[in-house]
Amino acid sequence: MRLLDAQAITDIALGSSILGAGRLLAQQSVGDRGPVRLVTAAEVHNEAAICFVAGMGAPGVLVEKLPRSNEIVAALRALERATGTQMTHICPVEAGGLNALIPFVAAAESGLPMLDADGMGRAFPRLDLVTPTLYGGTSCPMAMVDEHGNEVILRAASNAWAELIARAAVVASGCITMVACNVMSGTQAKRWLVHGVLTLAEQIGALVRAQQAGGGDAVAALVAHHRAVVLHRGTIRAVERRTEAGWTMGTARSRGADEFTGTDLELDFQNEHLVARLDDAIVATVPDLIMVLSADSAEPIPAELLHFGQRVVVLAMPCDPHWHSSAGLALAGPRAFGYDIDFRPVAGISAAGRPNERGLPDV
Amino acid sequence: MRLLDAQAITDIALGSSILGAGRLLAQQSVGDRGPVRLVTAAEVHNEAAICFVAGMGAPGVLVEKLPRSNEIVAALRALERATGTQMTHICPVEAGGLNALIPFVAAAESGLPMLDADGMGRAFPRLDLVTPTLYGGTSCPMAMVDEHGNEVILRAASNAWAELIARAAVVASGCITMVACNVMSGTQAKRWLVHGVLTLAEQIGALVRAQQAGGGDAVAALVAHHRAVVLHRGTIRAVERRTEAGWTMGTARSRGADEFTGTDLELDFQNEHLVARLDDAIVATVPDLIMVLSADSAEPIPAELLHFGQRVVVLAMPCDPHWHSSAGLALAGPRAFGYDIDFRPVAGISAAGRPNERGLPDV
Repeated sequence: MRLLDAQAITDIALGSSILGAGRLLAQQSVGDRGPVRLVTAAEVHNEAAICFVAGMGAPGVLVEKLPRSNEIVAALRALERATGTQMTHICPVEAGGLNALIPFVAAAESGLPMLDADGMGRAFPRLDLVTPTLYGGTSCPMAMVDEHGNEVILRAASNAWAELIARAAVVASGCITMVACNVMSGTQAKRWLVHGVLTLAEQIGALVRAQQAGGGDAVAALVAHHRAVVLHRGTIRAVERRTEAGWTMGTARSRGADEFTGTDLELDFQNEHLVARLDDAIVATVPDLIMVLSADSAEPIPAELLHFGQRVVVLAMPCDPHWHSSAGLALAGPRAFGYDIDFRPVAGISAAGRPNERGLPDV
Repeated sequence: MRLLDAQAITDIALGSSILGAGRLLAQQSVGDRGPVRLVTAAEVHNEAAICFVAGMGAPGVLVEKLPRSNEIVAALRALERATGTQMTHICPVEAGGLNALIPFVAAAESGLPMLDADGMGRAFPRLDLVTPTLYGGTSCPMAMVDEHGNEVILRAASNAWAELIARAAVVASGCITMVACNVMSGTQAKRWLVHGVLTLAEQIGALVRAQQAGGGDAVAALVAHHRAVVLHRGTIRAVERRTEAGWTMGTARSRGADEFTGTDLELDFQNEHLVARLDDAIVATVPDLIMVLSADSAEPIPAELLHFGQRVVVLAMPCDPHWHSSAGLALAGPRAFGYDIDFRPVAGISAAGRPNERGLPDV
């Protein structure tokens, strides 16, 4: 049992409203236009034209200003005009949160199929941190459309520049901006992307729903399904959070409970949870996944909704092998986020079952 | 006589190096490509395609990162690609500082003639504060190219949005970005722009040069030529300056000397000098011109180079009548810059000799 204070109720309402409104938007598009066709990499022609469609904005802004379907389609159309190419497939840049739902709207409204893949295999707070970057794939031309009707076509000198300039434009617009970018051929998409992630997300959703309905242990089921490690169970004691240039930055501390009584967890986040320390020993770092779940619902708690008194379970699991390559760690390892520490693989789990067969050198 | 301290020498070196390097760049283009053809509005076909070419950047950045001719031409070409229109004439957005020189480079390198006009008739620190805005002329499509090779094509919902998003992109790029924007027909340019300003600038330059060479009073000659009022002579006693989102903001105070002994001047600036107070009485406001000149050289001192101990002469003169219309004051009056004061025309001078014959309602 825990007592819900006003802040907790506000956070829960906000947290569920964000994804809830996103779901509503996607469901409305599917209701209006019919179901979205989900295709696997094997079903895609080598000459296909595939792009990411995503929303870019400060998480704090997302709460108040939800995207509309016409801006999503406008970004797709602007990218088609800029490249002179009609897209054949839509792909999510990440299969989590709003950015798993926005591509559904693009696919439903445009009638294009969606590829069962993404460009991260996890969530990252930057559009240059995508697996195509590891192979020389370019974010640009990038098309951006915001709710005011502002359209930007960006041809940046690098994917890092594209992220920097695009984010500045997003912060200036004061809202969430819809982005279409990273045009790829079918051949490129097959090699560059993380495949099967939407089906995986669907399975996890069904798993959690079944456990919740049957009174089972959703967290234990998730751990088993994810091949994850439980790093910590406890209660959030402190959260330091600040917003910098549209990012939610900070640190959370949690006091251990149950089998973790006597150990404290410290979490550094930059929109995503990036570094976990147990009693000052690093136990997980980006690009591996660090997930903070509600101990009650097993639902993920994003960095911007962490608050004092939450009962949490913290999991770690290896990221997609793309990111364990030298190029992957250079782009998305702890040092890329300004932490003066080396990447350390999640203890007790190897990524051996998921080999890096894509030709990128392992570290 | 005054003693030059280290700061003063640094400022003088910086101040002259900025315009000096801009001059060098323009002179090199003209040397390589031949003289630039300057045409008057009467010589322009109604179907001409005219655009502004300008540099956008924080003044502090301009000092360290000067534009290169290839970025200037790249911005022009990007605008032509975005609009599908070959430009026939180049026009400065303002006929002062670097932005009087950058269009020379565009004209010399492209072989296009330059129109003897600008979009301000003075200097403003924002690209939406141009006379075409008063007539519904749009800044967009706007093409931007920076020294890193980043290219942005912006189609904003309004000229104010274009300025906001473009400036955010410029600040993110950390340098001066070359901009081509405001495509106008010959008919539009004739009605919308402030004409003859380059010839006027040339006359003023020649006037000051002649006075300096002959030991004459350059300031007095300028006052007579500009139909300006001397608001103040004195010595800068204090400068408060900060940089906000790429703008140089602040206030300078000057102690009166000569016939102004006993009165103090206070100047508010936002890149440009915007409000002048004598002993707390407002004596000049934007959009009228407030010019701070070196008492010694009669050369203008921009806000970012004001410093303690400078001997200055402060002039005021009416702006182009475009800006005295209701629309002009709404866009560029003191309230548009956040000052809770009304516009007050420069005392002792009427703009009657330069009537607003363009059909915009006078205030």
